Amino acid sequence: MTQPGKVLLIGSGPGDPELLTLRAVRMLASADVVVYDRLVSDPILQMAPKSARMISVGKCPKSHPVPQDEINEILYAQASAGYTVARLKGGDPLIFGRGSEEAGYLMDRHIHVEYAPGITAAQGVSCVTGVPLTHRGLATGVQYVTGHRQSNKVLDLDWKRLADPDTTLVVYMGVANIGQIAVGLMTEGLSDQTPVLAVANATTNKERRLVSKLGSIAHDIRSAEMGAPVLFIIGQVVSLYDAKSTSAILTDLEAEMPAIAHA
Amino acid sequence: MTQPGKVLLIGSGPGDPELLTLRAVRMLASADVVVYDRLVSDPILQMAPKSARMISVGKCPKSHPVPQDEINEILYAQASAGYTVARLKGGDPLIFGRGSEEAGYLMDRHIHVEYAPGITAAQGVSCVTGVPLTHRGLATGVQYVTGHRQSNKVLDLDWKRLADPDTTLVVYMGVANIGQIAVGLMTEGLSDQTPVLAVANATTNKERRLVSKLGSIAHDIRSAEMGAPVLFIIGQVVSLYDAKSTSAILTDLEAEMPAIAHA
Repeated sequence: MTQPGKVLLIGSGPGDPELLTLRAVRMLASADVVVYDRLVSDPILQMAPKSARMISVGKCPKSHPVPQDEINEILYAQASAGYTVARLKGGDPLIFGRGSEEAGYLMDRHIHVEYAPGITAAQGVSCVTGVPLTHRGLATGVQYVTGHRQSNKVLDLDWKRLADPDTTLVVYMGVANIGQIAVGLMTEGLSDQTPVLAVANATTNKERRLVSKLGSIAHDIRSAEMGAPVLFIIGQVVSLYDAKSTSAILTDLEAEMPAIAHA
Repeated sequence: MTQPGKVLLIGSGPGDPELLTLRAVRMLASADVVVYDRLVSDPILQMAPKSARMISVGKCPKSHPVPQDEINEILYAQASAGYTVARLKGGDPLIFGRGSEEAGYLMDRHIHVEYAPGITAAQGVSCVTGVPLTHRGLATGVQYVTGHRQSNKVLDLDWKRLADPDTTLVVYMGVANIGQIAVGLMTEGLSDQTPVLAVANATTNKERRLVSKLGSIAHDIRSAEMGAPVLFIIGQVVSLYDAKSTSAILTDLEAEMPAIAHA
């Protein structure tokens, strides 16, 4: 009988391979099989063992993704065949990553699961731009929400709770609904002058930045033709953004394609 | 004239050295001087170059910390003397780390600043316990707040916004005020049955865990005599905690001092 394998739920961070943890690197190096999402960057995939079987389950906003049930089955099939399976996700597997759903499915079937946390996109943006997520006098805390709406459903967010001028609001997967998000926040009292930083493909050589205000962000995003994945940081901390004093994290890739700041 | 040095603001994560990013490791290895907080673990300090000058500016809850102004001056003095200064902080330097205050002070004086993000304590807890920060049907988002109160001041948190049964609430530095925090949340409608996970020294060999409910957490923390640093995760996601299926991240240190789970 085959010894069962295991599944390693690994956060690959925002894109720059230098933002992997040592734990993530070690786990990835031990993989027989790598199951990866669309947002895992190519330089990170290249860190997998040459012998590893690579399985893409990438979810594209406009194409049919591999359904979650099927991803669960792939992970289970590979692990129960005795393989060490690296499940690579963008960001952190336990923040908007559905990692806990996959882990629950596997543990119910007696598959051993281990985790490596990842730097979130918000932290990646923060570190390439110098914009903090908290700052004395500007933000006493930070909230992460998703602006993604399931098809045919209304975006169901508690605008009253989110419209807090003393907290930094980070919106993941919000580019399609940023107009509705901005209106919701302004209706509940957040000023239209609240600064907003939008960053696409943070920490990669495709990074693009846009600094705007809540009242104009929807228009500015359309004009700039920024597409997913875009992360929004909304709040007074964005006033600390200084285009001159910040630099892209990928020093070696900068020359090829510099980060574009639209002020 | 001496060429100016620079300051590298480095997140050292929750404690386990394996949770450093590759970027943090590279930056630390380049340091002439290391300025570190109390929450940076010994195994991480041992990763500094043997030749580096080590300066502790550790803040202890019950002793006089080095004032922030003085930390700023130390960083400036070392960098302007031409040294590469690694400023090591627990967690992430731009989330409750006052990293942006230090960066602002230095950039105003034309000192170059770079960042390495770090895994937050919440992410560390999440990955050693398997408790996610978001989960479909249990938590649509996550909020990070600090439960620390400046001396002689009332803990000034917006309980109405924080008492959200659909969001995970992460409280940093809250052990001294957890009674007041629990009452504030329950007064604004959060059930006394809301599960709470408290973890001290997450991901280190001194890690201790306690699973409780909002109505009893203050009593249980006192009984367990858990001291700072304690991180609280409050919300329905804690119902996914399963003592049997989770393991400490520091496999090699487990034998010495296992994590204690009080259920």
